[in-house]
Amino acid sequence: MTQTYSIGVDLGGTNLRIASYSEALGLMDTISLPTRLVEGRERVVRDLCEAVVSLKRKGYDGRALAGVGIGTPGPLELPEGILRNPPNLHGWDGFDLRNAVETCLAHSVSIESDGNAAALAEARLGAGREQKVDSLGILTLGTGVGNGLILNGQIWHGSTGMGGEAGHSIVKDQDGAPCGCGGFGCLEQYASAMAIQRMARERMGSEAPASSHAIFLMASEGEPRALSIFETVGHSLAIALTGLVNTLNLPLYLLGGGVCEAWEMFAPSMFRELRVRSYVYRLTEPGEGDPAALERHKTYILRAQLGSGAGLLGACLLPYERQDSTSTSQENLLVHK
Amino acid sequence: MTQTYSIGVDLGGTNLRIASYSEALGLMDTISLPTRLVEGRERVVRDLCEAVVSLKRKGYDGRALAGVGIGTPGPLELPEGILRNPPNLHGWDGFDLRNAVETCLAHSVSIESDGNAAALAEARLGAGREQKVDSLGILTLGTGVGNGLILNGQIWHGSTGMGGEAGHSIVKDQDGAPCGCGGFGCLEQYASAMAIQRMARERMGSEAPASSHAIFLMASEGEPRALSIFETVGHSLAIALTGLVNTLNLPLYLLGGGVCEAWEMFAPSMFRELRVRSYVYRLTEPGEGDPAALERHKTYILRAQLGSGAGLLGACLLPYERQDSTSTSQENLLVHK
Repeated sequence: MTQTYSIGVDLGGTNLRIASYSEALGLMDTISLPTRLVEGRERVVRDLCEAVVSLKRKGYDGRALAGVGIGTPGPLELPEGILRNPPNLHGWDGFDLRNAVETCLAHSVSIESDGNAAALAEARLGAGREQKVDSLGILTLGTGVGNGLILNGQIWHGSTGMGGEAGHSIVKDQDGAPCGCGGFGCLEQYASAMAIQRMARERMGSEAPASSHAIFLMASEGEPRALSIFETVGHSLAIALTGLVNTLNLPLYLLGGGVCEAWEMFAPSMFRELRVRSYVYRLTEPGEGDPAALERHKTYILRAQLGSGAGLLGACLLPYERQDSTSTSQENLLVHK
Repeated sequence: MTQTYSIGVDLGGTNLRIASYSEALGLMDTISLPTRLVEGRERVVRDLCEAVVSLKRKGYDGRALAGVGIGTPGPLELPEGILRNPPNLHGWDGFDLRNAVETCLAHSVSIESDGNAAALAEARLGAGREQKVDSLGILTLGTGVGNGLILNGQIWHGSTGMGGEAGHSIVKDQDGAPCGCGGFGCLEQYASAMAIQRMARERMGSEAPASSHAIFLMASEGEPRALSIFETVGHSLAIALTGLVNTLNLPLYLLGGGVCEAWEMFAPSMFRELRVRSYVYRLTEPGEGDPAALERHKTYILRAQLGSGAGLLGACLLPYERQDSTSTSQENLLVHK
């Protein structure tokens, strides 16, 4: 496998990133483009494929291309690879993304939700590998809230590929803010960059800065309304994590995405509330500080390690996942002969 | 396996039920005893073991005893089998139940939370078998709200055995009712028999009947306050199910337990709210009516099939689960020789 490379695509609502990767060298070349949504999905697919082909032309010292992986905003219907009402890709409902890219490239591709791709990267190359856990969940607090689950070493797709949408768990049952998913009161409306901006407008009116980073800076200076927003972020994460911790009892939950720059501001209220709300967490809470190695029988909630590149790296890993499962079944075939 | 039998124990806060089971005959003999909690846990263990021994003495035509399985209120620390602050077994915190029973019986036992035992029974012999699904979740709406998950054909224990506690997902983020788990606003406080009684006291004062069944009868006669309680049950189930459906995307969720006698009263508000809240549900909602066979790519929420005996039946099945996994690993050993 060291003599192959893969190409990964992170298809976001704003940015389209394409990278080449090998196990020995990690990420090799990365191309960043705007996602030209206004010019239509065919245009985006063409941009994507042209970038893949331009990387493939580099040859990489004769290495064979193990495959092409795509991480995309969900919900995604699997195994087909059809997008279903993706809140961040308006007009893409029902789009058979896998087929469109495969036709354009004349090459099969692996496709996953971006949350699952990030979870995979953290499991294989980030916090999960370091901590030697078989199962983990990730919440990526970016423009929206992504989610991915690795259970017993494998991505959890659910029965139609739409698992890992815990960003749309409900954290406010009454008067919840309307969400892009069509519901209201979702975690995404209380713990994303978009949510932080909305809460700033609600609480500061015309004084609200436009970006979540600027609101973070205000909070860093002790501005009470800005601080209260991150309290709400922490409270909302605790409500959603209570559901995940009590239902799944995983050894590790990771928080990633840009909002985590404010970790010191939301983590105290998150842990305080989680301790009150989740008895499974209370029974399994680890000691203070980030551990060198995870202790058995504990529930860790840590910052993700791979930063904003986790989704792209996970997309690069997808072809190797598929190859692994193929080689396993071939072994089985040999055994049963 | 048809020449063996098993003994299962359903240890409840009120009743202790012990049954013998064979694959060919199903449940054979059942013993029901009160759970004598006030006389101490050693007394309960002795009652349990004496009942097991009395069934074993019956011999069952020379069949070999495949094993003894126990379903118990959680949270349960596995693989040890130690109870951790079980809300419905006061004073049992830290009790090494597995060890106590194994010492008393001089026989190894399999132990699971009662919710997982019920999920296993529904998967192997109830709705899951009929519908040929690999994964399912169950919520048992009894005195409290139990939960169990079967993922890819296996009970999901979580990393310390405390998975399957979705009865303590939060459905009310503000002013939630205090829960036996130490938190507040849990599903158990809005969808259990106990919760129905509390809501009746809150909404009817001294006119409130004492039992949830009597409140169900009032609602059947159209009493508006009683009807509003079941509306709340449906709403609360929808909030919790939104989390489960969006996160896990299972093909089948079952609702069991005594509260389901009021299915016609809470199901309409449950499905209405779920449709609004969960986009994964909206994208995968099946047509009207209970299907003969589950359609692929749909999310079914149905009444459990096995009734209040699911937990006892699941306990009886546990020894066969363990035996299966042992025989698989033995096969593997042979293959690798």
